[in-house]
Amino acid sequence: MSAPTYDDGNVFAKILRGELPAERLYEDDHTLAIMDIMPRGDGHCLVIPKTPARNVLDADTDSLAAVAATTQLMARTVMKAFGADGVTIQQFNESAGGQVVFHLHVHVIPRFDGIAMKPHTGTMEDADVLKANAEKIRAALA
Amino acid sequence: MSAPTYDDGNVFAKILRGELPAERLYEDDHTLAIMDIMPRGDGHCLVIPKTPARNVLDADTDSLAAVAATTQLMARTVMKAFGADGVTIQQFNESAGGQVVFHLHVHVIPRFDGIAMKPHTGTMEDADVLKANAEKIRAALA
Repeated sequence: MSAPTYDDGNVFAKILRGELPAERLYEDDHTLAIMDIMPRGDGHCLVIPKTPARNVLDADTDSLAAVAATTQLMARTVMKAFGADGVTIQQFNESAGGQVVFHLHVHVIPRFDGIAMKPHTGTMEDADVLKANAEKIRAALA
Repeated sequence: MSAPTYDDGNVFAKILRGELPAERLYEDDHTLAIMDIMPRGDGHCLVIPKTPARNVLDADTDSLAAVAATTQLMARTVMKAFGADGVTIQQFNESAGGQVVFHLHVHVIPRFDGIAMKPHTGTMEDADVLKANAEKIRAALA
């Protein structure tokens, strides 16, 4: 197959350009962390690089390292913010790999003993719930 | 809760010390890639840091960057080795997060259009199948 390319019309590129809103949690020179609007559990957030990359297959090494560092920060932060018992990290590449938005993103999902991850339903979370969870994360980062 | 600690009796520590066998795929100064012996699909492999870390919550930044780089290498390699359509990457932290072996590891799972990931059954793959898939990956790396 021909190599897939980056299309800057994706929603994360629009969020990075300020063209779409998001619950922004953390930002540094290389990465942005936001709430997932279709969470598989309370506090499910995403880490994206600012440098365009379709997924892990085409990302540059510096972006990957920065995304890994911010993923660790967000994993530690959601443990604290929600008193979580663990964290599940997922990253999907191409449609067959589970990818829906074609800008590299890492899922950081707080987990709790005895509570299964919700299935991916495609249903948007209530904006007030997202906002409240985002505020818990921002408070734990502060 | 008290912070969980690293126990060097885990199977990946034993593999790193050469006390247990593994289908070794790739090794550099900071990381090792091996076959998962309970694969959720053909070519499912793991990337582990050589520096002891329980999971992403306690890993040092350099290890995380090295693991991210090797994860990218293995993702690209399994795409080539198996003609995969995508790659699913997973990383589990603490039991509630899905972690079973308490040495940081990243799952790299080749994916194919229309084929679901196998459930985690705890059943060991046939050694000859693992070896044949490992050889495909080593050939694609060469």
